Amino acid sequence: MEQNKASAPVPPTKRVRCIVKLGGAAITCKNKLETIDEENLKEVSSQLRQALIPNTDSAKVLGMDWSKRPGQSEPPSFVDEFSDQPVADSESFIVVHGAGSFGHFQASKSGVHKGGLSRPLVQAGFVATRISVTSLNLEIVRALAREGIPSIGMSPFSCGWSTCQRNMTEADISIVIKAIDAGFIPVLHGDAVLDTLQECTILSGDVIIRHLAAELKPEFVVFLTDVLGVYDRPPVEPGAVLIQEIAVREDGSWSVVKPRLEDTSKPVEFTVAAHDTTGGMVTKITEAAMIAKLGIDVYITKAGTDHSVKALSGILKGSIPDDWLGTAIRYMS
Amino acid sequence: MEQNKASAPVPPTKRVRCIVKLGGAAITCKNKLETIDEENLKEVSSQLRQALIPNTDSAKVLGMDWSKRPGQSEPPSFVDEFSDQPVADSESFIVVHGAGSFGHFQASKSGVHKGGLSRPLVQAGFVATRISVTSLNLEIVRALAREGIPSIGMSPFSCGWSTCQRNMTEADISIVIKAIDAGFIPVLHGDAVLDTLQECTILSGDVIIRHLAAELKPEFVVFLTDVLGVYDRPPVEPGAVLIQEIAVREDGSWSVVKPRLEDTSKPVEFTVAAHDTTGGMVTKITEAAMIAKLGIDVYITKAGTDHSVKALSGILKGSIPDDWLGTAIRYMS
Repeated sequence: MEQNKASAPVPPTKRVRCIVKLGGAAITCKNKLETIDEENLKEVSSQLRQALIPNTDSAKVLGMDWSKRPGQSEPPSFVDEFSDQPVADSESFIVVHGAGSFGHFQASKSGVHKGGLSRPLVQAGFVATRISVTSLNLEIVRALAREGIPSIGMSPFSCGWSTCQRNMTEADISIVIKAIDAGFIPVLHGDAVLDTLQECTILSGDVIIRHLAAELKPEFVVFLTDVLGVYDRPPVEPGAVLIQEIAVREDGSWSVVKPRLEDTSKPVEFTVAAHDTTGGMVTKITEAAMIAKLGIDVYITKAGTDHSVKALSGILKGSIPDDWLGTAIRYMS
Repeated sequence: MEQNKASAPVPPTKRVRCIVKLGGAAITCKNKLETIDEENLKEVSSQLRQALIPNTDSAKVLGMDWSKRPGQSEPPSFVDEFSDQPVADSESFIVVHGAGSFGHFQASKSGVHKGGLSRPLVQAGFVATRISVTSLNLEIVRALAREGIPSIGMSPFSCGWSTCQRNMTEADISIVIKAIDAGFIPVLHGDAVLDTLQECTILSGDVIIRHLAAELKPEFVVFLTDVLGVYDRPPVEPGAVLIQEIAVREDGSWSVVKPRLEDTSKPVEFTVAAHDTTGGMVTKITEAAMIAKLGIDVYITKAGTDHSVKALSGILKGSIPDDWLGTAIRYMS
């Protein structure tokens, strides 16, 4: 289904350890237009720093966001404290974030995903969506940079990525590779892009992650969300059980390995779909299964918890501790 | 000197009418860190709208920035007023802006232009510079969008543009062309980029314009600055004369055509350099001459004036009215 006409044939010199999805719901306030959940974003950024540059002392972090802060007219003073030592070797991560309360209003109001750039509402909605999602991208890049993470914002539109009938067709990842090789952490996002058949559409963060995972073969992929993982029924319902492990087979089908669900006759697709009121979880698990099929472990867990620390550290690659709360989706040959 | 390995061979379907440089000094407050000159930016954006979409009624403009405004929690209400008529055909413009009081502190403090990404200060400065210039880019895109201009921010770094010893080597403009053909106005900016020889550097807006002009052959190029144009001595000095027309010859040399300067024995290069305390004017005139050599008229004038309206409208292409204040740089065969 996917063709990657312009993809770089050269793999990165540095192997990508992890691709992290920052779910929109985890870092923004879902029901407040264009409002970042500052506390969560700070915690997520701090955890990412620990995973990327292990053994750093948070008190000694020198930030890379030198822009002035609200209410101040001077840049931060720590800028003079950078040493002349070579930069610490950091792990190769890629961050992809969703939109949450950014972009959603603009995109749905105008129907950008349905295409038709010759209509003024769609054209304006395309521009408005990009303004909204790029402003969120800038704030996430700044939050990561404040933690000393060398983050570089990269918009799929500017990277030249486009779709045909909403499937990715052009996605030259050579600049993502170059940024990684230069020691940076690329920060990409769901974006409004051009579509050869319907003129324009929305390229979601999840589709971007699937594409990057297929091309770069990271060791593992982590989805950070606002719930602990995938449940067998809506998590607010009494008795909802967190699905801790899903096995994906060669043909792409998948089944729950842990815990053993009581009603095994009920197809898992249905139980997952049943609480998918936002349309998010089914997409997520389908995308995750496609990544796991490539032999790449996928961990879905709640952002800013001990469980996300473990997922980001990579220790789940061996065995999953019983007290880890989240959903691991892995290939079973 | 320049090689464009990855440039798209296909010219845009729509001919580019004009490339506009928004000088950093014209749209930011030069001596106030990261402060936009809101009034100037609004006036420049309004003038650009008039040039792009002639005969629009400013009272009827429907903005394309639907993000919430400071102090408000709701998106603007005019979003419901978009009609179902096809979009008005607008002229093809490309906007490139400088950094002004954005990016400059970060870049000069860290020496990003000199390269050396393995040094923590340079790596951090690279990240900090990109944060600063992309935040200015976002604000300019928003200001243009509020005027109903379908503006799309595009960062040279994300476009995959890079340099070798500070000369542009890779600059695939296919995505710029696609954006234009889709009816958008690309908004690019001076940026921190990767350099194959010295690891990183700063790619200036002026160099970007020269490259785009050479590739896309626009009808004319306009530099909007904070002074009326190029003078024969510092404009604050008594008797300073505005140079109204410069002729560029085949070999790249150039001379003043209008007005006739009293001391013709004095090389113009020197008189221009003499007041070039910021290092800006000599670069500007050298870059302008290289563009004019391609047969493309270049107009340098003050942003937000009647003179910039005339320059942007394209009427100077025929003859330059005596009351137009600015510097026209044109090819003379």
